[in-house]
Amino acid sequence: MSDGRPAPGGRGPRRATVVGTGLMGGSIGLALRARGWHVSGVDADAEHAARALSLGAIDAVGEDPEAEVTFIATPVSAVVPAALKALASSAPSGVVTDVAGVKGTVLAAVDHPRFVGGHPMAGSEQEGVEGADAALFEGATWVLTPTSTTDPDAFARLRAIVSSLGADVIAIQPDHHDVLVALVSHVPHLTAAALMGLAADGAQEHGALLRLAAGGFRDMTRVAAGHPGIWPDICAENRDAIVATLDRLVDALGEVREMVASGARGELLATLSRARRARRDLPSPAVGSAHLVEVRVPVADRPGALAEVTTLAGALGVNIDDLVIAPSAEGDRGVLILVIDAPSVGRVRQALIDAGLRPSSVRRLD
Amino acid sequence: MSDGRPAPGGRGPRRATVVGTGLMGGSIGLALRARGWHVSGVDADAEHAARALSLGAIDAVGEDPEAEVTFIATPVSAVVPAALKALASSAPSGVVTDVAGVKGTVLAAVDHPRFVGGHPMAGSEQEGVEGADAALFEGATWVLTPTSTTDPDAFARLRAIVSSLGADVIAIQPDHHDVLVALVSHVPHLTAAALMGLAADGAQEHGALLRLAAGGFRDMTRVAAGHPGIWPDICAENRDAIVATLDRLVDALGEVREMVASGARGELLATLSRARRARRDLPSPAVGSAHLVEVRVPVADRPGALAEVTTLAGALGVNIDDLVIAPSAEGDRGVLILVIDAPSVGRVRQALIDAGLRPSSVRRLD
Repeated sequence: MSDGRPAPGGRGPRRATVVGTGLMGGSIGLALRARGWHVSGVDADAEHAARALSLGAIDAVGEDPEAEVTFIATPVSAVVPAALKALASSAPSGVVTDVAGVKGTVLAAVDHPRFVGGHPMAGSEQEGVEGADAALFEGATWVLTPTSTTDPDAFARLRAIVSSLGADVIAIQPDHHDVLVALVSHVPHLTAAALMGLAADGAQEHGALLRLAAGGFRDMTRVAAGHPGIWPDICAENRDAIVATLDRLVDALGEVREMVASGARGELLATLSRARRARRDLPSPAVGSAHLVEVRVPVADRPGALAEVTTLAGALGVNIDDLVIAPSAEGDRGVLILVIDAPSVGRVRQALIDAGLRPSSVRRLD
Repeated sequence: MSDGRPAPGGRGPRRATVVGTGLMGGSIGLALRARGWHVSGVDADAEHAARALSLGAIDAVGEDPEAEVTFIATPVSAVVPAALKALASSAPSGVVTDVAGVKGTVLAAVDHPRFVGGHPMAGSEQEGVEGADAALFEGATWVLTPTSTTDPDAFARLRAIVSSLGADVIAIQPDHHDVLVALVSHVPHLTAAALMGLAADGAQEHGALLRLAAGGFRDMTRVAAGHPGIWPDICAENRDAIVATLDRLVDALGEVREMVASGARGELLATLSRARRARRDLPSPAVGSAHLVEVRVPVADRPGALAEVTTLAGALGVNIDDLVIAPSAEGDRGVLILVIDAPSVGRVRQALIDAGLRPSSVRRLD
């Protein structure tokens, strides 16, 4: 649907702007260009933009007033002004999105129908556009955070573009996203750094220590090798969720400490067994969607229904394989068609009914 | 030197016994057999031994009274009786070693010239002999823990055998080993389980959470997928070091929490930058030893010199590429020849001098 071929009518390639041409912006540029898009790019540091151009991550330096989508890929502290500027200067139908790792503060400040918050759950230990990779998003989860303000058409178009880069799209409410990433990203990162710090203390005395660091320790501390520059911003923007989650982790470690100190073998085994089950149940990043199902939800007279329906699926962990906004049977514009994977359909359907929505039909696509 | 070919004199293959034919014992059996050894094996569970036989991890079920080396590969709580039994029943020159992850309690109980504690820093998420792998130890660090009781010949022979399996040998004092592994293995494992536990709490409410778990979280929690059965024993045997290290980690996380809560950007950046440097300085597991150096240390009249010299190198993180006990110039048995990698020689030489030893010559081997 969004394969980047010239738009119908022969008006040339589809057009995008990337604001911030570092690792993420550069990867988006490469991925779009590989699919035939024309990508313009700007960066607060003109040398960065020039490097992105020379490395083929963008076609031209500058903003493109005809861009159908603008990706704000600046550090999180710069997203809000950049997004407001892009909304003011872009085409009337141009969608603006961002890739920052924190969404609540951004969405509170940029409340606009054509702005859809985003967060691709992909990264790299590399830095800058030199680490950019056209394949960075293939198989990655890409969060979008629609709100009651979001224009369903803008969301549907952005979803299709992001999906064309190989990502699985999942819709989550902005504040909910922030609580979740504190747990699966921010606090793990800070914990890896703390562990690595303890080991570094030890290493000053004992060269042996780092020689003993086998695969498990290397795995656990790998994220600590990433560029630290982004973290003060992330910690500032997502402070409350990070502090609350660190408190929970410290409590959990305190419980484990008591089990070890008191020799509570049974409790220890139960704790580790539970963790093991949860780890083994982690969904594979490369789940195939062999069987897809179409769920139609009439939403004609519910404002904010797009965000409601899509984030309801997202909270269940269900990614949206496709999304179409169709005229309803009565002729007014008002049926959301979600395409999701078959095993999820029961849960999604029940959640929609629980929320007072009426999924009108479910159709298997083979 | 220890390539498993038939011993000189044509008396058939070299012989070993493995006690405990699970993942580790099975891997040792496979690795030795691949090098031409005859391996006997026993297990408290006769079915496990039979499975090891059928999978080719051992040649025969039973103990071999002629084994030149016996590997005790039982759970840590069963090591001491198994080691004492093997010492009593093996040949007069037979070396006995173990592979348990905790060494202080084992060495305190098994104080014998022919027992050398060991700990290969290699593992797998697999379980049982089905997960055994002849290549498990290639490039891995294998700790040996000589004490003042250890017979230098027994140590040198075991070092050569372990090294022939592809492992890098490092000598560390038993109690020191336990403090180090609490930091690089035991506490990281418990922390991964605690993080996974928090995520599992969340997952009951939010299916989205585990979908957001990108590569960093997967890396950090991978060890939590391992078999939990060994951990109550490890936590019991290494209780004090684990509790002390958990306390240090909780303190470190508390400091990070305060930095986040108070918006201490500079401190946060410094903490993460230091962790990053330490992570990037982790020695690669596959360091080549292009240039080796021979360090000769006269030790004729120093009891316990073997442990002293080798663990002194180990504490510096230096692995022992070869070790020979040679007659001294005066004709009495008393020069330890350590072969180590060239970049380490300055530090090792200085440490030997600081310890009152007199490294007599340093010779480059090219």
